[in-house]
Amino acid sequence: MSFSPLIRQLIDALRILPGVGQKTAQRMALQMLERDRSGGLRLAQALTAAMEGVGHCKQCRTLSEEELCPQCADPRRDDSLLCVVEGPLDVFAVEQTGYRGRFFVLKGHLSPLDGLGPEAIGIPELMARIEAGQFAEVILATNPTVEGEATAHYIAQLLAPRTIIVSRIAHGVPLGGELELVDGGTLAHALAGRRPIGL
Amino acid sequence: MSFSPLIRQLIDALRILPGVGQKTAQRMALQMLERDRSGGLRLAQALTAAMEGVGHCKQCRTLSEEELCPQCADPRRDDSLLCVVEGPLDVFAVEQTGYRGRFFVLKGHLSPLDGLGPEAIGIPELMARIEAGQFAEVILATNPTVEGEATAHYIAQLLAPRTIIVSRIAHGVPLGGELELVDGGTLAHALAGRRPIGL
Ligand SMILES: [Zn+2]
Ligand SMILES: [Zn+2]
Repeated sequence: MSFSPLIRQLIDALRILPGVGQKTAQRMALQMLERDRSGGLRLAQALTAAMEGVGHCKQCRTLSEEELCPQCADPRRDDSLLCVVEGPLDVFAVEQTGYRGRFFVLKGHLSPLDGLGPEAIGIPELMARIEAGQFAEVILATNPTVEGEATAHYIAQLLAPRTIIVSRIAHGVPLGGELELVDGGTLAHALAGRRPIGL
Repeated sequence: MSFSPLIRQLIDALRILPGVGQKTAQRMALQMLERDRSGGLRLAQALTAAMEGVGHCKQCRTLSEEELCPQCADPRRDDSLLCVVEGPLDVFAVEQTGYRGRFFVLKGHLSPLDGLGPEAIGIPELMARIEAGQFAEVILATNPTVEGEATAHYIAQLLAPRTIIVSRIAHGVPLGGELELVDGGTLAHALAGRRPIGL
């Protein structure tokens, strides 16, 4: 079936959304046009504002348009705990478990084959953050994948000379999975069962 | 978990999309911000252009920013068949079956309790379209719901004095369902099994 050009362009553009295929994009486009044009315009404005305005928190590196994200700006959080994750979606996943310490968000994981070394994923900034804080423990919550494990071990080795406790979330999380897809209960279990990292 | 204001607004705005709840909206927002900002901006532009620019085809009343939609503008389609549906998503569903006649798109179905009578749903425009065309048959493909059936019967009665064949899609389609959700095979079957409407 052929749609008019503006509708076709909207359907194509909607397919950048994760999990949205051709058929879903068609339903979304036609339903917005039929039933909620003001909602569609609000979405356009929110997209533009976010894509152009959102940067990274200067302290934890998560997505935020403010200098300090809401987590970093909150004075009631536990300053003795730092949880290191691979991306902003993981902050959300860990937060769901009830964790109320601080975060640091890497840009993914070490991937030598793709040329992604420590600098590319923000390890120097992580070290500076740990230097500036008073953390009793650093929890490495990178993904339970080969690359995530390697990244956790790399960080643990860097921190070994210090008196800080370095722990890894327990292997309650399924190996080979993505942290952001793990259900909250499993992840809470994995957090609770964390152990000092063995080098 | 608290997101910064621009991210929170984007998550809220994404929830107008059909089938998108809070968790999916969060994933969509963060994933776009992390991985595809230019795609997000393209989506914003496509949304604005479509919401502001798309009107209705002057002939079949489907969504289109052009005077004539691609179906109406196509000279190779069968001018002896007119398929009447409740909305643009149904055009898409019927088109999938291989139907290549013409369409007319009502604004939903008759709903006296909501004050939606023949004028509100475009029956006068349908009659004018039939008057202006040379249709041998009008296929009533309104939804197989109580309201869709009533709308089909109303139109059939209006057309009864004419020599035109008036048919209803066969009840291969499940009663109480929405046409746009029916799989293509079932709908093709229902179209093929259509019968003259009994008043
Ligand atoms: Zn922060
Ligand atoms: Zn048309």
